[in-house]
Amino acid sequence: MIQEIIERALAEDIGSGDVTTRSTIDPEAEGDAVIVAKEDFVLAGYETFLSVFLALDPSIDYSVDYVDGDKVEKGATIVGIGGPLRVLLTGERVALNLLQRMCGIATLTAKYVEAVKGTNTVILDTRKTTPGLRVLEKYAVTVGGGKNHRTGLYDGILIKDNHIAAAGGIKKAVKAARERAPHTLKVEVECETLADVKEALTAKADMIMLDNMDLKAMKEAVGFIKGRVLVEASGNMGIERVRSVARTGVDFISVGALTHSAPAVDISMKVKGRR
Amino acid sequence: MIQEIIERALAEDIGSGDVTTRSTIDPEAEGDAVIVAKEDFVLAGYETFLSVFLALDPSIDYSVDYVDGDKVEKGATIVGIGGPLRVLLTGERVALNLLQRMCGIATLTAKYVEAVKGTNTVILDTRKTTPGLRVLEKYAVTVGGGKNHRTGLYDGILIKDNHIAAAGGIKKAVKAARERAPHTLKVEVECETLADVKEALTAKADMIMLDNMDLKAMKEAVGFIKGRVLVEASGNMGIERVRSVARTGVDFISVGALTHSAPAVDISMKVKGRR
Amino acid sequence: MIQEIIERALAEDIGSGDVTTRSTIDPEAEGDAVIVAKEDFVLAGYETFLSVFLALDPSIDYSVDYVDGDKVEKGATIVGIGGPLRVLLTGERVALNLLQRMCGIATLTAKYVEAVKGTNTVILDTRKTTPGLRVLEKYAVTVGGGKNHRTGLYDGILIKDNHIAAAGGIKKAVKAARERAPHTLKVEVECETLADVKEALTAKADMIMLDNMDLKAMKEAVGFIKGRVLVEASGNMGIERVRSVARTGVDFISVGALTHSAPAVDISMKVKGRR
Amino acid sequence: MIQEIIERALAEDIGSGDVTTRSTIDPEAEGDAVIVAKEDFVLAGYETFLSVFLALDPSIDYSVDYVDGDKVEKGATIVGIGGPLRVLLTGERVALNLLQRMCGIATLTAKYVEAVKGTNTVILDTRKTTPGLRVLEKYAVTVGGGKNHRTGLYDGILIKDNHIAAAGGIKKAVKAARERAPHTLKVEVECETLADVKEALTAKADMIMLDNMDLKAMKEAVGFIKGRVLVEASGNMGIERVRSVARTGVDFISVGALTHSAPAVDISMKVKGRR
Amino acid sequence: MIQEIIERALAEDIGSGDVTTRSTIDPEAEGDAVIVAKEDFVLAGYETFLSVFLALDPSIDYSVDYVDGDKVEKGATIVGIGGPLRVLLTGERVALNLLQRMCGIATLTAKYVEAVKGTNTVILDTRKTTPGLRVLEKYAVTVGGGKNHRTGLYDGILIKDNHIAAAGGIKKAVKAARERAPHTLKVEVECETLADVKEALTAKADMIMLDNMDLKAMKEAVGFIKGRVLVEASGNMGIERVRSVARTGVDFISVGALTHSAPAVDISMKVKGRR
Amino acid sequence: MIQEIIERALAEDIGSGDVTTRSTIDPEAEGDAVIVAKEDFVLAGYETFLSVFLALDPSIDYSVDYVDGDKVEKGATIVGIGGPLRVLLTGERVALNLLQRMCGIATLTAKYVEAVKGTNTVILDTRKTTPGLRVLEKYAVTVGGGKNHRTGLYDGILIKDNHIAAAGGIKKAVKAARERAPHTLKVEVECETLADVKEALTAKADMIMLDNMDLKAMKEAVGFIKGRVLVEASGNMGIERVRSVARTGVDFISVGALTHSAPAVDISMKVKGRR
Repeated sequence: MIQEIIERALAEDIGSGDVTTRSTIDPEAEGDAVIVAKEDFVLAGYETFLSVFLALDPSIDYSVDYVDGDKVEKGATIVGIGGPLRVLLTGERVALNLLQRMCGIATLTAKYVEAVKGTNTVILDTRKTTPGLRVLEKYAVTVGGGKNHRTGLYDGILIKDNHIAAAGGIKKAVKAARERAPHTLKVEVECETLADVKEALTAKADMIMLDNMDLKAMKEAVGFIKGRVLVEASGNMGIERVRSVARTGVDFISVGALTHSAPAVDISMKVKGRR
Repeated sequence: MIQEIIERALAEDIGSGDVTTRSTIDPEAEGDAVIVAKEDFVLAGYETFLSVFLALDPSIDYSVDYVDGDKVEKGATIVGIGGPLRVLLTGERVALNLLQRMCGIATLTAKYVEAVKGTNTVILDTRKTTPGLRVLEKYAVTVGGGKNHRTGLYDGILIKDNHIAAAGGIKKAVKAARERAPHTLKVEVECETLADVKEALTAKADMIMLDNMDLKAMKEAVGFIKGRVLVEASGNMGIERVRSVARTGVDFISVGALTHSAPAVDISMKVKGRR
Repeated sequence: MIQEIIERALAEDIGSGDVTTRSTIDPEAEGDAVIVAKEDFVLAGYETFLSVFLALDPSIDYSVDYVDGDKVEKGATIVGIGGPLRVLLTGERVALNLLQRMCGIATLTAKYVEAVKGTNTVILDTRKTTPGLRVLEKYAVTVGGGKNHRTGLYDGILIKDNHIAAAGGIKKAVKAARERAPHTLKVEVECETLADVKEALTAKADMIMLDNMDLKAMKEAVGFIKGRVLVEASGNMGIERVRSVARTGVDFISVGALTHSAPAVDISMKVKGRR
Repeated sequence: MIQEIIERALAEDIGSGDVTTRSTIDPEAEGDAVIVAKEDFVLAGYETFLSVFLALDPSIDYSVDYVDGDKVEKGATIVGIGGPLRVLLTGERVALNLLQRMCGIATLTAKYVEAVKGTNTVILDTRKTTPGLRVLEKYAVTVGGGKNHRTGLYDGILIKDNHIAAAGGIKKAVKAARERAPHTLKVEVECETLADVKEALTAKADMIMLDNMDLKAMKEAVGFIKGRVLVEASGNMGIERVRSVARTGVDFISVGALTHSAPAVDISMKVKGRR
Repeated sequence: MIQEIIERALAEDIGSGDVTTRSTIDPEAEGDAVIVAKEDFVLAGYETFLSVFLALDPSIDYSVDYVDGDKVEKGATIVGIGGPLRVLLTGERVALNLLQRMCGIATLTAKYVEAVKGTNTVILDTRKTTPGLRVLEKYAVTVGGGKNHRTGLYDGILIKDNHIAAAGGIKKAVKAARERAPHTLKVEVECETLADVKEALTAKADMIMLDNMDLKAMKEAVGFIKGRVLVEASGNMGIERVRSVARTGVDFISVGALTHSAPAVDISMKVKGRR
Repeated sequence: MIQEIIERALAEDIGSGDVTTRSTIDPEAEGDAVIVAKEDFVLAGYETFLSVFLALDPSIDYSVDYVDGDKVEKGATIVGIGGPLRVLLTGERVALNLLQRMCGIATLTAKYVEAVKGTNTVILDTRKTTPGLRVLEKYAVTVGGGKNHRTGLYDGILIKDNHIAAAGGIKKAVKAARERAPHTLKVEVECETLADVKEALTAKADMIMLDNMDLKAMKEAVGFIKGRVLVEASGNMGIERVRSVARTGVDFISVGALTHSAPAVDISMKVKGRR
């Protein structure tokens, strides 16, 4: 799957050929490159980065100074690679585009995880990922210390407001899911009020999502649920707020911004020919 | 190409099936949905948004209240769609993921364009796009008022520092490009100093990129070039700085952040069953 | 997905062209065909059957006399189709190959379901499906009255003997799954003895599979579990035995033979030209 | 082609990941597995079986105790494989699904071949194969001692009842095929009566299929044809009947059940971790 | 298959977009085009030509003045099409590339067919086709009045000199083919001498190819064969020679040049905007 | 890309299997083959030739006697390959089809290049290539000493008569291209008269194509342009005429026949088994 992402990205960028490199660089010329952090961040994706060059030329050499999960400081050399100069130059942009994005996600996730440190709350991602890159982005979340929510619509049941409205209420929706959905999946229900929570528990939901509730309402809900099922808080989870949400005792906080709005971190690649 | 992006995104999210929707929603049930802005932004991608649902079911109805390029205010209804509830619910996340990202890019671009208003400088994007989504992201840049730089490595020659180092200097690199690259493409050269600029012009470059120069250096370079070739400024182009850069007289300012770090805008979809 | 199966099957059979039909049948000639049951069975897959012809020519006409789930008697006409004779003749074999297999599975499943009638036990399929046809075969099971177990390795956790051995025991395996696997999935554990069942429950398994146990052992296990979690019986579930297994009180009986050994039912297609 | 079947089957089963194995088995852990016959059968497909694991990890080790065509007795170890435990566990089901099916077909074919032993009649398969698996199933037939009929609609001409009706009679159909079909292919004609046979021979058919005839009619037809062309008997060829059919002197007996109704044989895989 | 050829050809030419048309032609502008013969030729491929435009836009209109097989004179308008100007301009080159090549093949074939007029000899093509375009090129041969030899290596047996050498002689090779190859295919043998012909007939070949023989040798061979099997002459079949070859009484003459060396015919497309 | 062309070509030819080779050649048998020139030509594509066999079996051995660009004389052995006889025989036709075509193009190009020797004019190809094979054909042109024009519609702007007519004149068309097309591409304009040339220069075209002009008109145009922009001559460029065209002083002459009408050169492959 990751191989396909890389090949698609290379095809998108290279098209019928890297005309600059092809015309200015001797096909026999070899060189080396270092990948340097231009700010502090959590590394995620160095193997994906290397795979881009290996997809172009399996003989590329490399050395690895940091691995995924490491905190990298501005100025540090993360990875060194060597091989045909044409390969280094042609793969650079795609490799950096992937790496900078993955590190951005891991770094933002790590900030959220740090913010809830000492509580029992786990930071989750959502399905608000970049179309086509979900596998890499969900991986970057785990590197940053978060946990993944369902991978897609096929491996988890989450009955949301729109399902509830369309199905005619929480009770009916949960009952339908219990009967017709695969018995291997838990049934999670999105609740906006304590009344919703009660109805969901009565209907035998396996998990409750507290959607867009304020702190007081969440605390009340957690108190009512009393550990019978897992509880997830969601909606508007800015980093300044997550610690107080975690203190309400929820098991999970899910954060869309981890994947849809993490800024890319700044990384550069410096290439040098060999003589 | 866009069709493939959408199909890939749907496959990624739906996999073997939307188990929640399939178990809670009657296959015959019909409904309507409105797409509502939760903040102010520039709309980009409403056709892509609709194409997601049409890929699931070509019979979907829709009405369009805003088109790409429009400034949308918080609370506005952008688009309405109607059809089988299952289709509305299953397509929601993928459609929003694409739309929110595209609007984010258009909105950030529009801010840069606004910042250089009144000058002759044009805002350009870069190849720092999301792997696999370049065509959509470059389109969103144009919706926001920017112009596209080359689409990939195949339709423009940009001799960068790494090429220059590897080729043995600006003069050699430009000469090689002139001889070997397609004669249909212009030759652009990345310059870090005025000396570089002079060498590039002597070597008959068609376009100059001023890389990471300060304002003074840029002004000097523009003065030296005197309109003989197009000039692009690049590197570290924070929005607070672009107006002063534009005033140096450069023709283009290219901004990687337009595509690699634009936060997603907030948009929601509200679904209602029909009776 | 189903569309891809059909296209692949047609490509496999037609290759560079149906030389018999092309050389003996006038391209303009139209005709009609009836699909006739040559034995009694449960119908499953008539839409797939029609889709084969529609993939060759979207203008094909058809009338439907029975729908999926119907019991069809020998001699009955199931479906009638009309259109270009070439299309009818070229699509015949692929369409029948799919239909006969799907009906075979539905028919065998219905026999199992009938055998446990009056109990609370549900008949499940397994992952012992024909490679490439799982979606159609799992569908045929539901048409026959069974329920689907997990679709693949990605939407259910089933810790089997081999996992237990490799992980160092039931307790360790369940604990690892609880911590590392998606929290949206239930954890099912394969148990061969009552001791296994006890260990699994203590470790907080969400579901128990009784593997290859005799009736007495199953009864004992069900008694011990007392409805706290769902119970599945598996292994060697010949049709002559399932009723007594159901009577032990297990919630599910899973049967690999439904998909790996159901014989095709006999169906023929009779074509007639129009004058 | 076989590689594609395997990759498709693995994708179908693994989807976004084997969550059980991934969460319970250490990525570094190595192990060994033996594949054991749980009943007597003819082996077919051990290379396909191994290819499944090699597709997941090219470094897998294996030892082979039986090869295709061997008669395997219950309890025998067919193949041993070793490597990362995760690979062994993730590939198990797909590999067994393919192997059990192929052995089932070879075993059933061998019974038919045994039944006609001593005659000059050859057992043929048909196009009644599992969509998408034809190449593997036709191979399994040859392993069992049968011979393949045409691979698809493109490499053999078989004028069946439906073609005859549509073309306006045997004579017209054969003439059309002679003129328009590739001259590299023989023309076979399905005949239901001796009159059909005579008409087909007069029209210069290269081969005759006797369709659903009784023994007496077949004997008569064979007598009439007198070796001038090859003769195939088809329709309703239960194993109890094939010997008497063979004795009529037909060159071939084609049997759809070989591929559409062969039950899977019982094979298990036992995995053990290395310490 | 043809659809795929067209889509591949369009992707190859259009890549990331037709920048000339996109920048110079209004997206709303409509126009008409005529396709004009610039020399005399036999038309082949007008439907393929139209399919190129229909692949870009299914709403394209067209009128057809000549159909495949027609002799077209210089100056004649073959086809007219109308629709969005952008579509007409973007599809032009791919459509003409295909049409000019197909007409070239049909025209050359027609010359060969004309040259053997009045004899019973049929002109055949070979497998010396353009990789990827065989289906179109073999079709063009039939339009020109030729007949197709086998489509590929899978639907005909042709034992050539290299097979004979490797198999240890004609007799051994034919015997092996009779036993192991599909019984639905005829066995053709390449012969270089009369002795070869005799050996092939004794071994029961179904068809003889006379390879690179002179007229006298061919006449002798045909005399010896006396109509028992079909005879094909091959090798060095320049148009000036085919009539005398045909007069030796061979059934077929196969000509590689039909597809590997037919020059493209000259056709132009003239586009006009609508007001 | 080239790998895909080869795989597609092999699939097209081999389909479900090479029945001749499979039935007549022992799978274990090894052999050697030499590739021999049957006429004089310029070699192009020997690596592509070898890649065909390597795609079938990566263990194939080979020795190379000539490389691309070499002039090969009739009778010379170009390449030797060794390995399984089946691979040699099965790959032969596809490998030769590609090689013969590529050599044909290089040889014709070399004749054009020779014809303009001593002038400053460069021979260019066009987009009149074989659909699907452009990358190989454009490469063969460079081997023959020519240079490539744009690769497709995406990496060069060429405003042709049809664009001019549709856009409302040269001036409007060039202006539109300047504003809307990527600034990385030069703008070339097709001119039929000196007046066109003047209008194009005034509108700031970067390059002029003189289309179907006679020698006198071309000389006049070149004189007027005086080296300010590059000049290409096109249309009706038979080899007998190119030297006089070159002498008008044009920078480029583009020749469609290089790729659409180059006859295949004659090359044969002789296979011998090893004992």
